[in-house]
Amino acid sequence: MATGSPYQQLEQEFRRLHAFRGVLALLRWDAAVTMPRGSADLRGDQLAALQIEVHNLLVSPRIARLLDRADAGAATLAGWQAANLREMRRLHDHAIATPPSLVARMAKAVARAEARWREAREANDFGVLAPQLDETVKLVRSKAELLAQRFSLDPWDALADEFTPGLMSKHIDAIFTPLTQRLPGLVTEAIELQSAAPALPIEGRFSASRQRGLCTDVMKALGFPFDRGRFDESDHPFTEGVPGDIRITTRFVQKDPFQGLLGALHETGQALYDLGLPAEWLDQPVGQDRGMALEESQSLLLEMMVGRSRAFVTFLRPLLEKHYGAAGPEWAEENLYRRLNRVERGTNRMDADELTYQTHIWMRYELERRLLSGELAVKDLRDAWNALSSDRLGLVPASDLEGCLQDIHWAVGSFGHFPSYGVGAVIAGQLWEAMREEQPGLEAEIAGGQFAGLFGWLRERVHSMGAKLPVPALVEHATGRPLTATPFLRYLERKYVAEF
Amino acid sequence: MATGSPYQQLEQEFRRLHAFRGVLALLRWDAAVTMPRGSADLRGDQLAALQIEVHNLLVSPRIARLLDRADAGAATLAGWQAANLREMRRLHDHAIATPPSLVARMAKAVARAEARWREAREANDFGVLAPQLDETVKLVRSKAELLAQRFSLDPWDALADEFTPGLMSKHIDAIFTPLTQRLPGLVTEAIELQSAAPALPIEGRFSASRQRGLCTDVMKALGFPFDRGRFDESDHPFTEGVPGDIRITTRFVQKDPFQGLLGALHETGQALYDLGLPAEWLDQPVGQDRGMALEESQSLLLEMMVGRSRAFVTFLRPLLEKHYGAAGPEWAEENLYRRLNRVERGTNRMDADELTYQTHIWMRYELERRLLSGELAVKDLRDAWNALSSDRLGLVPASDLEGCLQDIHWAVGSFGHFPSYGVGAVIAGQLWEAMREEQPGLEAEIAGGQFAGLFGWLRERVHSMGAKLPVPALVEHATGRPLTATPFLRYLERKYVAEF
Repeated sequence: MATGSPYQQLEQEFRRLHAFRGVLALLRWDAAVTMPRGSADLRGDQLAALQIEVHNLLVSPRIARLLDRADAGAATLAGWQAANLREMRRLHDHAIATPPSLVARMAKAVARAEARWREAREANDFGVLAPQLDETVKLVRSKAELLAQRFSLDPWDALADEFTPGLMSKHIDAIFTPLTQRLPGLVTEAIELQSAAPALPIEGRFSASRQRGLCTDVMKALGFPFDRGRFDESDHPFTEGVPGDIRITTRFVQKDPFQGLLGALHETGQALYDLGLPAEWLDQPVGQDRGMALEESQSLLLEMMVGRSRAFVTFLRPLLEKHYGAAGPEWAEENLYRRLNRVERGTNRMDADELTYQTHIWMRYELERRLLSGELAVKDLRDAWNALSSDRLGLVPASDLEGCLQDIHWAVGSFGHFPSYGVGAVIAGQLWEAMREEQPGLEAEIAGGQFAGLFGWLRERVHSMGAKLPVPALVEHATGRPLTATPFLRYLERKYVAEF
Repeated sequence: MATGSPYQQLEQEFRRLHAFRGVLALLRWDAAVTMPRGSADLRGDQLAALQIEVHNLLVSPRIARLLDRADAGAATLAGWQAANLREMRRLHDHAIATPPSLVARMAKAVARAEARWREAREANDFGVLAPQLDETVKLVRSKAELLAQRFSLDPWDALADEFTPGLMSKHIDAIFTPLTQRLPGLVTEAIELQSAAPALPIEGRFSASRQRGLCTDVMKALGFPFDRGRFDESDHPFTEGVPGDIRITTRFVQKDPFQGLLGALHETGQALYDLGLPAEWLDQPVGQDRGMALEESQSLLLEMMVGRSRAFVTFLRPLLEKHYGAAGPEWAEENLYRRLNRVERGTNRMDADELTYQTHIWMRYELERRLLSGELAVKDLRDAWNALSSDRLGLVPASDLEGCLQDIHWAVGSFGHFPSYGVGAVIAGQLWEAMREEQPGLEAEIAGGQFAGLFGWLRERVHSMGAKLPVPALVEHATGRPLTATPFLRYLERKYVAEF
């Protein structure tokens, strides 16, 4: 039986929800890593049953009553408790804002659109997806309007708030304006510099077992807890689980010695974020990560900024010798560094480098805002996409597969999600600058395989804050300065032009 | 929202419960096979949260009301629906019979007793466990009395009914009386016969990968569905999951070429039972297996009767050559058959052969009835155990570890469970006799690696009946004769004496 103050009773209820979150994570991990191929339908039923249970708990009249009573007594709560109550309220309000009938209609539309997206890719024809995408967009628009009314926000902001709390389009616009002004020129300069001194190619075959050995050594050095976590392979790298049982995956490509490692670094960044969350709040909403952009910042900081730095290459070099028998000029540190930081224009977001990636995000952000407002009709999406691609990247996709059919996000109703990827890099840039200013010896430590300074700083400034602050306030707390694109731009300028 | 008749609404509720059962199975499988060592506490929280959820759903006032209304209209239900309603009622009544306060006290006592049992084994001293076991027994007694009142049963029967519905002590007594009269003599005769012509020893080291290859080939021949199931290793062999995602494990011992295979056969027997359950009732109570003794019958039929038959050895012989490079007289069929069917007296139940195993069960059945009734005090258990062991097996355990500390069952409150193991073998004997009478060519088929006749018969007569009938009625339905020990005894006589 629940006892204690309304706030304490809420903590008990959310403790159960936390257990279910961990169970859902295991169901997803297993589906991607260990589940027999033919068991997908059964797993779908299990996931749906548990998700409905979680939703019903979250929107239950009992939770609503307890929240009202706890809000009334909120003045007596201390900082973390007050923040926890705020997060409970946020989760409840988001869950209840969309009526069950709309949730059910969206679930069906999304399932159909996902299937159509796959068929459209088979046929390489956006026309196959368009009618179903149109239905999804209309339902998302209804949902956005309901959320917007409830939270007094712009519709797009109301959707984005679910992914990255507190990060609004005004922030994103302020970040993208300077970025997008400088990026096209920066890409041109970087490509010119790189083609003047091209890196030697690295050839050979790198077995999964050798790549796994390399990744494991690197992850051990970084502090991944193998006694409370796992490292496996799956079709796409991902991180699942909750602190206490964090599981990451990567994908090994035999001809590429680095893709598997970079995937592992990306996921290790997120895993170590989860592991640094405040221990005493782990089973409460305020003890969770601060959403997509923050997760992405921790992944990109490790994969892109640390993992492709000259210092990290110095650390990595002996491990490449150990696991790959690396020898010869193509394995020299400077050649590895250049290969890892190659810039190339392409139409595909997933394959993009750190510089051109932002252009892809910027395009998607513009297009999804216009789709949501109705200014752009779904039937005109292909033309709008190709025109923007030509304008921003100087490339027209060879086909829909390379263009507007490359991402599944919109088909499955995920609007407000893309900017988190871009803003993640911007946040990572600001953190990376601040920690190196405060710890001038940091890169020398990394070159020596010492990562305590790096992760100690992140744990203190970012991880241990959990979900206590909105995203912009969290970044300002961590770095002492408001969130802007300036440090990220400085980082790009130095890396790709000044110090290349 | 739930719609339809009370019975139809109940089907919807139990469909959710079925999804949760599958999730619980995955949580347990993962804990034994893939979970990181340090994540056990977290997993414990997740299991507990979901088990409480399942319990709460099962005992909810809504289910109680729907059951009452459905019972009132039960006359309109067809056979399977009526049986399903009966099983729903049974699950609800069992769950509600024990008050939450007693459930909570038992959970705590059991956790303490489990820890004490491990400590007692470390110290090889029953005295370390005794006080805690005494508390467990008292709580089990309270539970048994509550169940007995509710279901108008003898207290031990009320506990056993949870494991093997419909199998009461009157059946068990009727089975054990002839068995225990004949067993001591039969064991003596078998050992004399075997020592007159001892089997050649099999030596060598058999790597896990070779053993896995052998098991996989055998499981494929038996029809294990690798596209909707898995085969892994764990400390103890087990079967987990639900039809659609069945997972079995075994344990490989390098010096023993057969232990891993026999474990796999045992679990494959249970897995194929689950897979033969009535497809249209899979997510309902009536579509589940008919409890412990039936599961055990399917495991033992495959591991002991089929898997150690001369016909099966003929089938196995070329696979042993393929995977183990088996050559030489010790791998001759008759020698293998004799090794697989060796009888030996021992104090350890888990290591016991098919003949002496029954004596272990008979001892435990007697002791647990006396503990439950209070006729035997916990403090006197060691003496009673050793006296019975001396009387029935002719052996006194060398220490508590070999005696009254070998099983965890009573420490964790599991009373009424042991006889299911023994009755499982008796049921298997009756099924094995009946199917060979009806299919005279069955053993020739098995020798040729054809198992369609074996499993076709089991599916039609046993598996597809789900939980529709109580255990004794199910056995009578399958074989056309009441459940008795006679066929099992005939099988033992023939195998170990007449045809050895």
